[in-house]
Amino acid sequence: MLVTLLTDFGTRDYFVGAMKGALLAVSPQAQIVDLTHEIAAHDVAEGAYTLLAAYDAFPAGTIHVAVVDPGVGSARRPVLVATRDYYFVGPDNGLFSYVCERATDARVFHLTNSAYFRAPVSSTFHGRDIFAPVAGALASSVSPTELGVQLTDYERLAPLAPTRAPDGTLTAAVIHVDRFGNLITNITRADLPDETTAQGIVIGVGEHQVRSFRRFFAEGDSGVREIFAIWGSAGFLEIAATRAPAAQLLGVTRGQQVIVQSPLFEVEPE
Amino acid sequence: MLVTLLTDFGTRDYFVGAMKGALLAVSPQAQIVDLTHEIAAHDVAEGAYTLLAAYDAFPAGTIHVAVVDPGVGSARRPVLVATRDYYFVGPDNGLFSYVCERATDARVFHLTNSAYFRAPVSSTFHGRDIFAPVAGALASSVSPTELGVQLTDYERLAPLAPTRAPDGTLTAAVIHVDRFGNLITNITRADLPDETTAQGIVIGVGEHQVRSFRRFFAEGDSGVREIFAIWGSAGFLEIAATRAPAAQLLGVTRGQQVIVQSPLFEVEPE
Amino acid sequence: MLVTLLTDFGTRDYFVGAMKGALLAVSPQAQIVDLTHEIAAHDVAEGAYTLLAAYDAFPAGTIHVAVVDPGVGSARRPVLVATRDYYFVGPDNGLFSYVCERATDARVFHLTNSAYFRAPVSSTFHGRDIFAPVAGALASSVSPTELGVQLTDYERLAPLAPTRAPDGTLTAAVIHVDRFGNLITNITRADLPDETTAQGIVIGVGEHQVRSFRRFFAEGDSGVREIFAIWGSAGFLEIAATRAPAAQLLGVTRGQQVIVQSPLFEVEPE
Repeated sequence: MLVTLLTDFGTRDYFVGAMKGALLAVSPQAQIVDLTHEIAAHDVAEGAYTLLAAYDAFPAGTIHVAVVDPGVGSARRPVLVATRDYYFVGPDNGLFSYVCERATDARVFHLTNSAYFRAPVSSTFHGRDIFAPVAGALASSVSPTELGVQLTDYERLAPLAPTRAPDGTLTAAVIHVDRFGNLITNITRADLPDETTAQGIVIGVGEHQVRSFRRFFAEGDSGVREIFAIWGSAGFLEIAATRAPAAQLLGVTRGQQVIVQSPLFEVEPE
Repeated sequence: MLVTLLTDFGTRDYFVGAMKGALLAVSPQAQIVDLTHEIAAHDVAEGAYTLLAAYDAFPAGTIHVAVVDPGVGSARRPVLVATRDYYFVGPDNGLFSYVCERATDARVFHLTNSAYFRAPVSSTFHGRDIFAPVAGALASSVSPTELGVQLTDYERLAPLAPTRAPDGTLTAAVIHVDRFGNLITNITRADLPDETTAQGIVIGVGEHQVRSFRRFFAEGDSGVREIFAIWGSAGFLEIAATRAPAAQLLGVTRGQQVIVQSPLFEVEPE
Repeated sequence: MLVTLLTDFGTRDYFVGAMKGALLAVSPQAQIVDLTHEIAAHDVAEGAYTLLAAYDAFPAGTIHVAVVDPGVGSARRPVLVATRDYYFVGPDNGLFSYVCERATDARVFHLTNSAYFRAPVSSTFHGRDIFAPVAGALASSVSPTELGVQLTDYERLAPLAPTRAPDGTLTAAVIHVDRFGNLITNITRADLPDETTAQGIVIGVGEHQVRSFRRFFAEGDSGVREIFAIWGSAGFLEIAATRAPAAQLLGVTRGQQVIVQSPLFEVEPE
């Protein structure tokens, strides 16, 4: 069974290794894949975004374990989210919010059956002591109802989607800056149908106005440095630059507001 | 068979990939798990600590390969350490010292049988040419006595434990700074029984005196930044700060002396 | 089947995870090994070097996927290189040049059969949408001729080898700086037979002249810092320093010219 790991543990310490050991001790046949361990420390929203971008590339049945967990040891609950195709295991702090916005059939379970935990459970490392062994149990075909009790009041982050003003103006945000310095926004094709991007669109990012759209990074690359918008591979609108990091060129970091205007936005009838 | 890797090779170069290739060339069914490859270059003690913290989360039978090896190609010996539950493969430079302090049944073998090495053996990369193929041989059920001859005079680092003065004062050290900036000391629960931490304890770290103990990181978190002590997940006392890196706040790095005093320390009879 | 991955994607983002998911969705039994994901962004030559250094440590039959792909989505072709022992999958931009210099039996195929791609194919992430699923198909025993059509006009980088002047002087370059600060040159033993390095050799690197050769890093280590030449584990001449980063000590970066002179170089007859 395939199990992925996403954490903010970094790769310098023994944390990730210990999680894998604890998982394999329960389920020696599990196949483990790292999504990333470089989520910024305690940054639940970044973890939620990265999980959203990666989870559905995996085959149905995959178990995704995510641990960005500043509240470890406190009253925050350990949970299992079950959707039609995937399982998600981690803390109940909103980490699975964005996935749950898409997978509307999600059921959430409070992991209460300590028989499936490592003993003793430390108060500082539930990745090793609860989440990894529970994922191991799932990989060994233990059912969610055996692991805990269903919840309805789980934690959610603020919705990911941008907001739209009556005149059609979109207020969005930079939700991630990737390794190449591309600015990933929370704007999807549902927010910006193709006809609206064809002409006249203006995307305001800080002081800058971006008016150019590309289909691929090297399109029309004349050697002149240009800032442009592009549909990214995770399904979100990105602001990028010609073979250069847009984030540095524009001095923009995550959280930056993004305003989109187009003469083709339909104005809502009053 | 499960094989873990711990090195100071980093992940930018071809080193780790080549080790895995050499291992899988011998034992295609081996399941490889990375502990870390970011041990500071040539830092044997840091490698020894990280291995100690992670090794026993893995199922019995796991083969741990560790390569922090400034003496590669010199007269330092390649060794195999066999304990009841695990194998350890790497250079004889103290890397397995801390594990051997705990696993008192350890037998150490000098890897002399070059039939199990990659040919030719380079003088600069025994990770690929000796340690990985030997781990592959172990994973294919070759016995330690087939691989080499038992040793009694292997290398050890200075003992990990803190020292105690006649009045009970503990002199310890920061042995690791983790990704979150927590300061891991070499103090265990055997050194500080629960009653001694209940009241009046003073932990001196550089200029600072820490008097507060927590059970989990977010405990009593009032938003005010506090420096506190906590039992960490590797079994050692840690100095941490409220959602912040204690190392930076205190200006402390690895090696810093730590002095612990408690009115409840029993004074040894003179 | 064993599949390795080499990219410039870094490990912070969802890219590598998504590639692995797409690969395992096609070939659940594939065993994936990371070579590195820290090739400098868009640096095709660094990717080509690292692949060259690692590929043949793996068992015959291994599929190497390499994605350093600034031209993604443009007219640059996706290719498969088949040698006697290995497959290579990635963009046609020279990434496999150095491997092809050695594996002279290489056949190159243009990946044209979109039935083996992920649908839809994005214009920004062929790692996930083309290269990973094609590698999955290979791992499931689909043949190269089923995946595309053979090419003869594929892209190559400038040859890796140094040039030799009529008087025997070698003009070479630093092609990589590794994690330890060692300077890897493009000089092989074919360029510098053992007798030429025995005495009188002078290796000019920037302002510096290196005259000392070692067999292993700690050889003759007297505690005095020395700069020396050494045959590295990838088969290239390296410039290194006693337990210190030569790159920093010499202020040298990749691309630096290296001039080698020896009284024993045979002068070509005019």
